[in-house]
Amino acid sequence: MTKFVTLTTDFGLNDSYVGQVKGVILKINPNVNLIDITHQIPAWDVLRGAFVLNSFYKYFPKGTIHLVVVDPTVGSKRKRLLIQTRDYVFVGPDNGIFSFIYENEEIREILEIRNNKFFLNQESSTFHARDIFAPVVGYLSWGVEISQFGPKVKDCVKLNLPLPEIKKDSIKGEIIYIDRFGNLISNISREHLNGFEKTKVSLTIGNRKIEKLSRSYSDAKPKQILALVNSSNLLEISVRQNRADEVLNVKIGDKLGINLK
Amino acid sequence: MTKFVTLTTDFGLNDSYVGQVKGVILKINPNVNLIDITHQIPAWDVLRGAFVLNSFYKYFPKGTIHLVVVDPTVGSKRKRLLIQTRDYVFVGPDNGIFSFIYENEEIREILEIRNNKFFLNQESSTFHARDIFAPVVGYLSWGVEISQFGPKVKDCVKLNLPLPEIKKDSIKGEIIYIDRFGNLISNISREHLNGFEKTKVSLTIGNRKIEKLSRSYSDAKPKQILALVNSSNLLEISVRQNRADEVLNVKIGDKLGINLK
Amino acid sequence: MTKFVTLTTDFGLNDSYVGQVKGVILKINPNVNLIDITHQIPAWDVLRGAFVLNSFYKYFPKGTIHLVVVDPTVGSKRKRLLIQTRDYVFVGPDNGIFSFIYENEEIREILEIRNNKFFLNQESSTFHARDIFAPVVGYLSWGVEISQFGPKVKDCVKLNLPLPEIKKDSIKGEIIYIDRFGNLISNISREHLNGFEKTKVSLTIGNRKIEKLSRSYSDAKPKQILALVNSSNLLEISVRQNRADEVLNVKIGDKLGINLK
Repeated sequence: MTKFVTLTTDFGLNDSYVGQVKGVILKINPNVNLIDITHQIPAWDVLRGAFVLNSFYKYFPKGTIHLVVVDPTVGSKRKRLLIQTRDYVFVGPDNGIFSFIYENEEIREILEIRNNKFFLNQESSTFHARDIFAPVVGYLSWGVEISQFGPKVKDCVKLNLPLPEIKKDSIKGEIIYIDRFGNLISNISREHLNGFEKTKVSLTIGNRKIEKLSRSYSDAKPKQILALVNSSNLLEISVRQNRADEVLNVKIGDKLGINLK
Repeated sequence: MTKFVTLTTDFGLNDSYVGQVKGVILKINPNVNLIDITHQIPAWDVLRGAFVLNSFYKYFPKGTIHLVVVDPTVGSKRKRLLIQTRDYVFVGPDNGIFSFIYENEEIREILEIRNNKFFLNQESSTFHARDIFAPVVGYLSWGVEISQFGPKVKDCVKLNLPLPEIKKDSIKGEIIYIDRFGNLISNISREHLNGFEKTKVSLTIGNRKIEKLSRSYSDAKPKQILALVNSSNLLEISVRQNRADEVLNVKIGDKLGINLK
Repeated sequence: MTKFVTLTTDFGLNDSYVGQVKGVILKINPNVNLIDITHQIPAWDVLRGAFVLNSFYKYFPKGTIHLVVVDPTVGSKRKRLLIQTRDYVFVGPDNGIFSFIYENEEIREILEIRNNKFFLNQESSTFHARDIFAPVVGYLSWGVEISQFGPKVKDCVKLNLPLPEIKKDSIKGEIIYIDRFGNLISNISREHLNGFEKTKVSLTIGNRKIEKLSRSYSDAKPKQILALVNSSNLLEISVRQNRADEVLNVKIGDKLGINLK
């Protein structure tokens, strides 16, 4: 059975860090199928890593191992986690990067990776992805029982995710992600919009108003501003065939409001 | 038999869009071998996508499925295509991205992808690559008959590709692509140069003259300007170990001329 | 048995050059497993390519073929090499990119690739990676005897690698690499530091002094400067969760000194 390992890191694409990790995994289990997700999480940006992970993991086959390393406190006492859910295994540092997983997945077991007989380098202090996480993923994909890697843990670090403020006739949220197209993605989900969706709503961001929710980017004319619920079920502000972040001069953390008209 | 799927998009490498597409394909057919070509087609630049596709597809094994998504009108009425040629299948939006394929390949059948029993998401409006194209590629690679995906189509969108103006003793062309090395690639092909090639020619671009065609980059001294027919059989202006676009201050669309001396 | 081919180039990720190389290899041997290391070696930067290669190759399974192409003199008389070591095969241009391999590996045989019956294109003058190296790697992975590809060579190009100046109570070195996190990596190795390591040392770079060697990034407070021996066993200057190159205004080639206190 093909075993997939997805790779999500902030290691960038210019150095050999990703290559070293790949080599270590393949040396242990040459039959694993490595799938690059992104290595361009901004350096040390755990929240962005958590968000990216949450947006892709569930599309993969059952049994996939998701290795996620954005690790600003590598070498400190922060734990190294192995999270077994119903469908997947997640491996990475205990710094909040799995915050959405705890909320959205059926957790079976969380272990702290401690058994150094699976480590590449007993003394690793600067590159746990290569020396600890990669070999663990290699052995895991090879069939080593998860209980072998270390003891169970209960408390994991969770990020303080910004939540929208929802009232009967208004929602206040914020921009939590800007994608490669300049789309502004908010923390307001399709569920938050229940009751608002089919009614006429008015959306405010910066000094702009958007008077309805569209269904698709192509509902707007080129260069027009629109709002829609995107493919991750989050409210998104977009400018047709242009960068909304630049047109609206909006950045992560900026607020947006929705009102019933 | 290994089934290859190449991936060419404008999704960038910072978000999880590519990862989502990969997951959907592998969930349907875990035996597929996904090959990243590039995800850095400039956003919404269909012409560049068409050009990139044309430059690599024919190097792949017979039976390869080429998924190509640069899709500025996603969610509109633009068709979704499945193109069976003698050697390959091409899948993507009907916006001209396959313009060179219609010219260069032996087309067997062109279908409009309509059968939503193969879709991931019946209501997809913003991310057809994940919700429609990826599952179609998955089932296709798995052996589903192409006729299952939808009806035949005849008329497809073709881009107005800029063509050179060829006279007995001169050619006027333009720069259609600038690559990572700053090389300036024109729309003048090796065939267009028949009759010119072996004769002495003079080439004009901006206010510069180049007095011959070289065979290789190393025919020039470092920092010298040269012209040659490149590995895609197109006339290219290059500066040895430097960026020709910056040295010559040339951009896409700029003209160049060739004259018999 | 799975055959791995790693790919390290300066071709970038925007064009289809990498895709063309991948296609050519897979057309010859569809069973090969291609592993992208990086395609973002700065254009024509052979020294950086050599350094990157040296940092990852040994993590891969025995039998891996490492294809490395940074090739500013493509098309010239520079040789094309196939290097058989005890554990690996290296393929690429003879321009010094394998400088560290000659030092660190047990060399079995070095051949000049000359047998054009294995070439894709007899007349290749601008794209040897696609026309010569890729098919050679394809046939090699398929089991063709290395002696088939060409005659033995003795003299290969070696880069003048900057070496540190080591005295009894001081070392003078320089920065040879800056990574994606802005870490400043020097040419002073763990071995060079023997005798210094456990003693109190003082490190000078630019107008800054660092008064000890740390074990891990997390030994410093956020934004603090530290020095440590990194995961490649080289002395590295880092700023915790910030870019040391920007904070210290240091670039490649800048000097650093170590003194016993």
